[in-house]
Amino acid sequence: MANPLDDVPPTVDDIRKAAETIKPFIYRTPIMTSTSLDEMHGFNFYFKCENFQRTGSFKFRGCMNAVTNVCLNRDTPPILVAFSSGNHAQAVAKTAQLKGLKAHIVMPSYSPAVKINSVKDFGGSVYGCGTLMPEIMSKIEEVKKEQGENAVMIHPYDNPYVMAGQGTVGLEILEQVPNVDAIVVAVSGGGLISGICIAVKSIKPSVKIYAAEPENVGDKYRSFLAKKRIPMESRPKTIADGLTAPIGSLTWPVLQEHLTDVIPVTEEEIISAMYLSWERLKIIVEPSAAAAFAASFKLKHLSSSIGVQNVCVVVCGGNVDLASIPPKPST
Amino acid sequence: MANPLDDVPPTVDDIRKAAETIKPFIYRTPIMTSTSLDEMHGFNFYFKCENFQRTGSFKFRGCMNAVTNVCLNRDTPPILVAFSSGNHAQAVAKTAQLKGLKAHIVMPSYSPAVKINSVKDFGGSVYGCGTLMPEIMSKIEEVKKEQGENAVMIHPYDNPYVMAGQGTVGLEILEQVPNVDAIVVAVSGGGLISGICIAVKSIKPSVKIYAAEPENVGDKYRSFLAKKRIPMESRPKTIADGLTAPIGSLTWPVLQEHLTDVIPVTEEEIISAMYLSWERLKIIVEPSAAAAFAASFKLKHLSSSIGVQNVCVVVCGGNVDLASIPPKPST
Repeated sequence: MANPLDDVPPTVDDIRKAAETIKPFIYRTPIMTSTSLDEMHGFNFYFKCENFQRTGSFKFRGCMNAVTNVCLNRDTPPILVAFSSGNHAQAVAKTAQLKGLKAHIVMPSYSPAVKINSVKDFGGSVYGCGTLMPEIMSKIEEVKKEQGENAVMIHPYDNPYVMAGQGTVGLEILEQVPNVDAIVVAVSGGGLISGICIAVKSIKPSVKIYAAEPENVGDKYRSFLAKKRIPMESRPKTIADGLTAPIGSLTWPVLQEHLTDVIPVTEEEIISAMYLSWERLKIIVEPSAAAAFAASFKLKHLSSSIGVQNVCVVVCGGNVDLASIPPKPST
Repeated sequence: MANPLDDVPPTVDDIRKAAETIKPFIYRTPIMTSTSLDEMHGFNFYFKCENFQRTGSFKFRGCMNAVTNVCLNRDTPPILVAFSSGNHAQAVAKTAQLKGLKAHIVMPSYSPAVKINSVKDFGGSVYGCGTLMPEIMSKIEEVKKEQGENAVMIHPYDNPYVMAGQGTVGLEILEQVPNVDAIVVAVSGGGLISGICIAVKSIKPSVKIYAAEPENVGDKYRSFLAKKRIPMESRPKTIADGLTAPIGSLTWPVLQEHLTDVIPVTEEEIISAMYLSWERLKIIVEPSAAAAFAASFKLKHLSSSIGVQNVCVVVCGGNVDLASIPPKPST
């Protein structure tokens, strides 16, 4: 596999290797189904439950793969440094705990309290900072400098080992839902969806892959239409707090090559889909994951979905701040 | 097996027969675990997820067994009549839908809207009535009379076929958690816990069985202390809307023989346990099921739990009216 400094996306073989590497640490998450949601929308839905993954999201896969490989390539134990408002932060802190390493996490001021507390519970050191990317990056540089030459930054998505770890979700989907013909995944920085694209398109190229994105974010939708990476202008405001990252430089080319479409979803659609998934599947789905549900409910209106019958929706996480969710909309 | 009119509790063989009868219709629900809850309380917890059962609760098992047996013993198709504020109502309506039968359900005025709507979605006819038992019983007699001689009442718990169907949860627990040494189940009319007692105590008598009951209900706790069935004086007020039935005449002797203890839980403990289970297990647990979680968190304080290590908590249902849950308590 490419050295992380090489900045080359992983291959399907790198993803298979990642699957072996992380196997002792991760859960092979189940697929759930719902006849009532199937009847409502005319598809056979298969929900890949990464909300049941360790630390409550898929992020643990990529992080464990990246950190394990960092350790292999060094004589001294690394000191992990990361920035994240939530799920990646928890994954880095938990990985550090399991590996006996230190984790220093920069968390912007909009990070949910429940996620900050979880990082601390796993033994991570949390550094607050402002909300703008220059502030976050300057805080990270400060923390890295403080920690000295053993400090290693684990990027949340623009890292081939992280992408390879997330891609193991795609391998499992192909094993668990062999008849799958479309996959719907929420996109943020693009680590998960790019990993899934590489794994699935290499093995079963006919599978269509759809990205779900909040309308209030939109850089992925605009980039997809423009066929080039369009930067994000300001921090977007959405209930899906896990979906506010700009698309990565390493992930974008993979998406441009493989995505079937980007499906924008409104805030109202995300909230309705969140409650519907709670009620029908009896599982806790975070707003970022609900964006994928919402997109899958709109799939039937897209001409590219003609012929699609078996749709796998990736439930990317279940970390919700239950004290601050908006009330259920009246129907 | 005893004829339903015989009013004799089922045997473990009746429960094994029920398991065969309902196998094509039910889900074999999974067991979930949580290292964080284990660390908090010092047990190995195994959560038996009947919230993922069809219709969102264990009730479907007993109902399907009872109705299948009613059909076997008749020349003309029965017309199903039942009373229930929620989960039994949904189970009867769904069973009727699958068997091509009619279901007429008397639902008292305190029934959650979400459960009434679900019964209607399954094609059941709903009859509103007041909240007091005499009103409910008189409404049932009226409905039965209207439906004529083919009307058959499916009692929610005082019916040996229903008890046998619920007892299949116990058989599955022994298969899925062979090292189990205690089971915690919420109790209402007693159909589920009596079925579990008969199945588990017949096969592995060393297993301790604990009933969880809201303090605001209390007839099971008082009956257990008094060693005789003590009637309920008025309809109890608790967030656990599924746990307000008085203990049955057929279920009580089973409980008296087999229960290790009854663990009362407060409303605050139920609500906290509900949110904790949502956050840690990422599953939707209804307040009645949260009562069992709350009781299992108090188990370590009971002298009867000395030596207990592997505790199975039955998650009896996941039907929550999300529009009307109390907010998460601040910690």
